[in-house]
Amino acid sequence: MAKKRNIIVGQSGGPTSVINSSLAGVYKTAKERGFHKVYGMLHGIQGLLDEKYVDLSTQIHNDMDVELLKRTPSAFLGSCRYKLPEIHENPEIYDTIFKILDKLSIDAFIYIGGNDSMDTIKKLSDYAIIKGHSQKFLGVPKTIDNDLALTDHTPGFGSAAKYIATSTKEVIRDALGLTYNKEMITVIEVMGRNAGWLTGATALARTEECDGPDLIYLPEVAFDIDKFEKKVRELLKKKISIVIAVSEGIKLADGRYVCELSGGADYVDAFGHKQLQGTAAYLASFLGAEIGCKTRSIEFSTLQRSASHMASRVDVDEAFMVGGAAVKAADEGDTGKMVVIDRVSDDPYMSAAGIYDVHRIANNEKLVPRSWMNKEGNYVTDEFINYIEPLIRGDYQPFMVNGLPQHLVLRTK
Amino acid sequence: MAKKRNIIVGQSGGPTSVINSSLAGVYKTAKERGFHKVYGMLHGIQGLLDEKYVDLSTQIHNDMDVELLKRTPSAFLGSCRYKLPEIHENPEIYDTIFKILDKLSIDAFIYIGGNDSMDTIKKLSDYAIIKGHSQKFLGVPKTIDNDLALTDHTPGFGSAAKYIATSTKEVIRDALGLTYNKEMITVIEVMGRNAGWLTGATALARTEECDGPDLIYLPEVAFDIDKFEKKVRELLKKKISIVIAVSEGIKLADGRYVCELSGGADYVDAFGHKQLQGTAAYLASFLGAEIGCKTRSIEFSTLQRSASHMASRVDVDEAFMVGGAAVKAADEGDTGKMVVIDRVSDDPYMSAAGIYDVHRIANNEKLVPRSWMNKEGNYVTDEFINYIEPLIRGDYQPFMVNGLPQHLVLRTK
Repeated sequence: MAKKRNIIVGQSGGPTSVINSSLAGVYKTAKERGFHKVYGMLHGIQGLLDEKYVDLSTQIHNDMDVELLKRTPSAFLGSCRYKLPEIHENPEIYDTIFKILDKLSIDAFIYIGGNDSMDTIKKLSDYAIIKGHSQKFLGVPKTIDNDLALTDHTPGFGSAAKYIATSTKEVIRDALGLTYNKEMITVIEVMGRNAGWLTGATALARTEECDGPDLIYLPEVAFDIDKFEKKVRELLKKKISIVIAVSEGIKLADGRYVCELSGGADYVDAFGHKQLQGTAAYLASFLGAEIGCKTRSIEFSTLQRSASHMASRVDVDEAFMVGGAAVKAADEGDTGKMVVIDRVSDDPYMSAAGIYDVHRIANNEKLVPRSWMNKEGNYVTDEFINYIEPLIRGDYQPFMVNGLPQHLVLRTK
Repeated sequence: MAKKRNIIVGQSGGPTSVINSSLAGVYKTAKERGFHKVYGMLHGIQGLLDEKYVDLSTQIHNDMDVELLKRTPSAFLGSCRYKLPEIHENPEIYDTIFKILDKLSIDAFIYIGGNDSMDTIKKLSDYAIIKGHSQKFLGVPKTIDNDLALTDHTPGFGSAAKYIATSTKEVIRDALGLTYNKEMITVIEVMGRNAGWLTGATALARTEECDGPDLIYLPEVAFDIDKFEKKVRELLKKKISIVIAVSEGIKLADGRYVCELSGGADYVDAFGHKQLQGTAAYLASFLGAEIGCKTRSIEFSTLQRSASHMASRVDVDEAFMVGGAAVKAADEGDTGKMVVIDRVSDDPYMSAAGIYDVHRIANNEKLVPRSWMNKEGNYVTDEFINYIEPLIRGDYQPFMVNGLPQHLVLRTK
């Protein structure tokens, strides 16, 4: 009788609408490939260190549950932000992890997350090779920010982009309905930290029946507040309702974040992270004071990463695909690798799972190329739009119960 | 040959997800009842005074357009905030209006809006009777705030409630995925000015697989910040992730809005209206400082009134129904009336259009009864939930084009 092989999967970093679709892909593929038990770490490697995990067959009972999981936002297993120390700094922690993996007869370890998670995969696979452990370690990318290198785009990005573009269309319509003979300026703030991918996605709102935003400012180009005001004044001569999309991370030429200019408020959270919030509010209030017209600011906030009710079918399917591909790779003997999405064709859009050595993943952010923005730095180009457009296509209708989307949630007791 | 009868319709006040469904109901019913032309005022009575209107048959070409209109948020015809003067103060303005109505051979005038719009209907119908004009004037209610009297609820409320409850579920899931061994408090800010209906709708997120918000604060009860902090500290002993819903309009016992406490920022807009914004941000920052844990604030902002992609089928259908009922009433000789929604049955939920004399509509806000909140004033009761639950049922799937909801927009030129 063949040895029973088990697999363990964890989720890490900021949530997305489709991080659970990758989990579903891992689960389904592991079952199809004959893995015996599929364990889920609770709150990633941090929970695993506390021996917190579940047998996923106690959570996912049938294909209906798999489909529900694909429609559930945020990390089903719980997430963490935990960076493993270097091996030489603290070998004990590695011993602890491998003892737990041995105890559970783990053959493959899959980690769904961002750059930090790929660092975890790298360290664990290095350690296994050094110490002669047989487990395979594979990474599955996710982030709404789309700032990971090597992959054409990241799972989670397409759904966030779809939600952002949809909401932008609705906000533009709202503004048009309200403005008759008095100007109004709306400033929308979008996530993405130092990468402008999500803010650029507001350009998708430019459709047959919608002008889209009038100006788009990404953090990749230094923000000049005088030029900004001049541009807005120029537009107000032609249009009564102006809608502007700005990234939370736009910075002045001197390196200060625009959201820091408001002063007063404390923009550092309990962990000492600088909170990028208030950019739109600051700019709306600035324009209101300078120009003397009605302004308003809208933050899409965390809704943009958890609005699975507006997920992209392409994104959900790709997230599922990369989860499954990681299991396949581990099953075939790969380790220390990250699964990526390769774009096979633009029209019709086709993609496939590729695979990269995690040692090749540099820890730097993939930013929007300068050439994908216009010369003035206040809009994205057609190349940007052509790149992003296929990623928001198609829907996964939520399963509605009593008028609300139903989610699959962890049952422990 | 019978005299050709024309009808004119306008939209007024803050947009909703379904104000265009009422417009569609007016158009469709007017056509079915043999009205010749259906005109739309652009930006309500204010645009009409500038002789701005369209023949709606140049905009709505077929049933597909009617369906698209039902799925388009914000005022298709444009809205206004314009209060007619008293008749004796400025009879000239009434002369002007009736000259335009006569010129267009208008037989019936339908106005979709809130309290101010019903005031317009009252004044115009009074003037017509006084002066012997034959036009009929009918009002169709709308507001997401649900603060109109006489009607069981207002068109627009159910869809906003559905969006708010859906987003609350997604925010709660997001928070749960993020919290492992460090507490986090999320404060959600909901619209509604002085009425707590929309904030109370967050309670619908309490479902089989979701706890719902932990605390809900409505403006109907004075907000006590010390009791609030004490309650949050108490909850933190039992739960790691706390989600709190507050109305933008909560006030201290001394009458000050909580959002005014943040100071510094200028919360008066260009029209001198006090802007109720920043309540959640203030409370999150207050709790962060006092308790020393991670906090975040989320404003649902204007998205809650324009997210037609998450509209309630009951709401869209009722908005259509009241639009049609207003045409029917006018056609049968009624004038100076507002159509309302009467609840015929709770289970199964059934409603019908009723009709009220606009002179009976007092200009006061319908607030959440104190008995529909718990004793501590930090949650709503089952009665509240039973009242609101049927109103979010069912969906109108958006018509998706290239991955985004399509809207019907005004074509002028």
